[in-house]
Amino acid sequence: MGALYKIDLNSDLGESFGNYKIGRDEDVIPLISSANIACGYHASDPVVMDRTVRIAKEAGIAAGAHPGYPDLMGFGRRNMAVSPSEAKAYVLYQLGALDAFMKTIGLPMQHVKPHGAFYNMAAKDAALAEAICEAVKEYNPELIILALYGGELEKCARAMGLRTASEFFADRAYEDDGSLVNRRLEGAVIHDEEIAIARTVKMIKEKKVTTIHGTEIELDCRSVCVHGDNEKALAFVRRIREAFAAEGIEIAPLHEIV
Amino acid sequence: MGALYKIDLNSDLGESFGNYKIGRDEDVIPLISSANIACGYHASDPVVMDRTVRIAKEAGIAAGAHPGYPDLMGFGRRNMAVSPSEAKAYVLYQLGALDAFMKTIGLPMQHVKPHGAFYNMAAKDAALAEAICEAVKEYNPELIILALYGGELEKCARAMGLRTASEFFADRAYEDDGSLVNRRLEGAVIHDEEIAIARTVKMIKEKKVTTIHGTEIELDCRSVCVHGDNEKALAFVRRIREAFAAEGIEIAPLHEIV
Amino acid sequence: MGALYKIDLNSDLGESFGNYKIGRDEDVIPLISSANIACGYHASDPVVMDRTVRIAKEAGIAAGAHPGYPDLMGFGRRNMAVSPSEAKAYVLYQLGALDAFMKTIGLPMQHVKPHGAFYNMAAKDAALAEAICEAVKEYNPELIILALYGGELEKCARAMGLRTASEFFADRAYEDDGSLVNRRLEGAVIHDEEIAIARTVKMIKEKKVTTIHGTEIELDCRSVCVHGDNEKALAFVRRIREAFAAEGIEIAPLHEIV
Amino acid sequence: MGALYKIDLNSDLGESFGNYKIGRDEDVIPLISSANIACGYHASDPVVMDRTVRIAKEAGIAAGAHPGYPDLMGFGRRNMAVSPSEAKAYVLYQLGALDAFMKTIGLPMQHVKPHGAFYNMAAKDAALAEAICEAVKEYNPELIILALYGGELEKCARAMGLRTASEFFADRAYEDDGSLVNRRLEGAVIHDEEIAIARTVKMIKEKKVTTIHGTEIELDCRSVCVHGDNEKALAFVRRIREAFAAEGIEIAPLHEIV
Repeated sequence: MGALYKIDLNSDLGESFGNYKIGRDEDVIPLISSANIACGYHASDPVVMDRTVRIAKEAGIAAGAHPGYPDLMGFGRRNMAVSPSEAKAYVLYQLGALDAFMKTIGLPMQHVKPHGAFYNMAAKDAALAEAICEAVKEYNPELIILALYGGELEKCARAMGLRTASEFFADRAYEDDGSLVNRRLEGAVIHDEEIAIARTVKMIKEKKVTTIHGTEIELDCRSVCVHGDNEKALAFVRRIREAFAAEGIEIAPLHEIV
Repeated sequence: MGALYKIDLNSDLGESFGNYKIGRDEDVIPLISSANIACGYHASDPVVMDRTVRIAKEAGIAAGAHPGYPDLMGFGRRNMAVSPSEAKAYVLYQLGALDAFMKTIGLPMQHVKPHGAFYNMAAKDAALAEAICEAVKEYNPELIILALYGGELEKCARAMGLRTASEFFADRAYEDDGSLVNRRLEGAVIHDEEIAIARTVKMIKEKKVTTIHGTEIELDCRSVCVHGDNEKALAFVRRIREAFAAEGIEIAPLHEIV
Repeated sequence: MGALYKIDLNSDLGESFGNYKIGRDEDVIPLISSANIACGYHASDPVVMDRTVRIAKEAGIAAGAHPGYPDLMGFGRRNMAVSPSEAKAYVLYQLGALDAFMKTIGLPMQHVKPHGAFYNMAAKDAALAEAICEAVKEYNPELIILALYGGELEKCARAMGLRTASEFFADRAYEDDGSLVNRRLEGAVIHDEEIAIARTVKMIKEKKVTTIHGTEIELDCRSVCVHGDNEKALAFVRRIREAFAAEGIEIAPLHEIV
Repeated sequence: MGALYKIDLNSDLGESFGNYKIGRDEDVIPLISSANIACGYHASDPVVMDRTVRIAKEAGIAAGAHPGYPDLMGFGRRNMAVSPSEAKAYVLYQLGALDAFMKTIGLPMQHVKPHGAFYNMAAKDAALAEAICEAVKEYNPELIILALYGGELEKCARAMGLRTASEFFADRAYEDDGSLVNRRLEGAVIHDEEIAIARTVKMIKEKKVTTIHGTEIELDCRSVCVHGDNEKALAFVRRIREAFAAEGIEIAPLHEIV
């Protein structure tokens, strides 16, 4: 019998480029269940992609595409006014490119999570969200779209009959409508790791979160986004895993949960 | 019953980029049987790739990948000392990227022909040729590798059990070993279109070509490379087609010949 | 004695890239007085820049920098959320790069005109405008900033004590506040060349333009923006020049007018 | 009175890009006398360049340009068959771009040292060397060209009347003709730091080095190339500095020595 509670842990990986190394992929991969792998637009290159899918496969975790804007200099973190048809083509390009490396080693593509500014814009802009969903649907309708809770991308995926899941940010405060509190506002980031973990456990078990205004709202996220950039981030992931183990929460890839 | 003689006509297409238009793809596509489509490295972008595969499909011709060096500024025409493992990863990346657009419209990938300096280097450098063949074999072993006659790429493809074909250059003189006469030498380019066409017909029917030294050698090419950059090039393709019709030579995509 | 009326004709040039040719620079350069030369970000490359500054010098026209967003794929026409400090650094980089080619042939840099989306954003976003002005002021405070009439860039340049000029669009309708009518609205583009030229002559002689709403407003532009992409555009420039000659309007580079 | 012996310590800096950090510039800059600053082709971007020239100026060291091939993915370490005219234009572009940042803070450009494969090719290929020298001469004939000892670039610079200097590699073995022993050969790299430092001191004081074959040859290098990528490299630079202090060798920027 499976665990009563299951959650996915996802992390953005494979973001090195040429001679530039970023992230501690080898260290974080064994701690997560789903890897979001960069596809050569906001980060990564073919050699990095090849290496990253192999590490993911060896670790037995699931992997998905992490397409971004064509802005290596800005690491895909700057909004770009790409048209929906451009966005759709950029997603197709990146899905196919990554999939080439996955297919040759027999690692199925599980999901798609847009990166950075592309992710944020897709949560706000319905036309952009639709373009992404169309690319996914045409490329492989089994792919799960991993999106911001309550955003346009999640809505559009659902409306188009695609599988979708939203992710929880352990260290971020929420507004009453389920959106994230703007980072510039006081209290937007939760620095106390114990509180962050307790909130995550509550979200998983009760599907509820207490907002920055003290209201308790429903929030049904199937994945928690974690980072592996440095030792502190890695230590936090290890603490989350320990808390989950103690609470009877099983970590499982998205495709087992959605 | 099929024609006694069959030949493929291939051309490099989809080389526009963003606001930059190059080539007259719409005009040349109806005249050829196999399109070599750029994949975003030496030329093209996702929007152009999407458009190009659609035009090819509508025209009912076969299509393949035309991967190049990551040198947009040099249009992939400058040698780059990429390592075999880099070359393999670059090919996989570009195959997958193009295939995404082809799969979503149901156009099967027929072949792979490296571009420009990558093509020339693959004919000379056995390790590079092997890297390309490995990428193709791992990605899709049914793909036909279109290569320079007698070069390392063709040899390696054969040795690895891959399908391969070489292409004939109607307007180029040949050396006794079947290689092309260096462009810098006198007589390297055949400017008389009648002679060029007659040579092509002879190669198809007799599998022979007369070299620059007057020797008659065996040359078995299954495809003829043509261009669609300008009106003169297009007119030449039309003349070739007329000559083929008059000679009972059927134009057919590579996969019907190899 | 000089002419009673003087006006600059400017055009965006040097936008070819590698193997990609765009624009008919050789044809339009003899018809204008100021060239806005691309600097390798939204378009151009060092070889093109070298060639373009030489053509401008031979024709005896003035030249300036045309810096853009780092978005070759989008030709700098898509808004990018670059920060002011990034924008300042991008301008400095591009000014210096172009100036290297100008200095080696003894062609002084006359002006700076941001390109495409960068130009439009600089007219709306005061912080971006300030960043551009700071770059210009620190690099060479004698440079003239060529900007959209009434926009933030022009205002900021004036406030910082920089030389500035705004440009007139012969074929565009104006709002009562001196801004351009949105291209998507009916009547935004004036297709009748006679009317376009008459409006331009009136603006030069009377510093007035009749808006889309029939109001007559003051509009003091020292330059008219023209294009050289195709034969029609070139013919229009020739008609403008003839009308100016007939009206006693002298065409002179910006630095003689501002 | 100045020291009896003077030597320059140079290091490649400013090679970070966007979100990618590489090297420990802040730590190595105080230890050297000349910084070779990347110019946005093989590495760096305008924001990084702006920051790097400021750090160099604050530390009071001299700075120069470190132009590379347009190959960010390969970090400029792969040979590219760029033509001499392309190479000349690439150098001009990069010199101007970097100089914009230097001029605005009043830091004069001292020297030019090509990067990676561009550096190696310039030492072997006379036409490439000449193209680089022409760019430097036309841009600023006072710039010092820092090159490989005995290579074509050094020869060409001398022949064209440019100031030039060559650099010593403390940890590399030399052939009898003053060239470096190929890295793939045994003994090419000197791992014993004491020996490496002793060789460096001897080269400075006696202008001699003992080759891998045991021969003592003349070698007159005015700069020693050091690295600042990691703690080990930094510790080695500190040891070199201590040895120099003990030996009465003064560290001074190139322009005080050449």
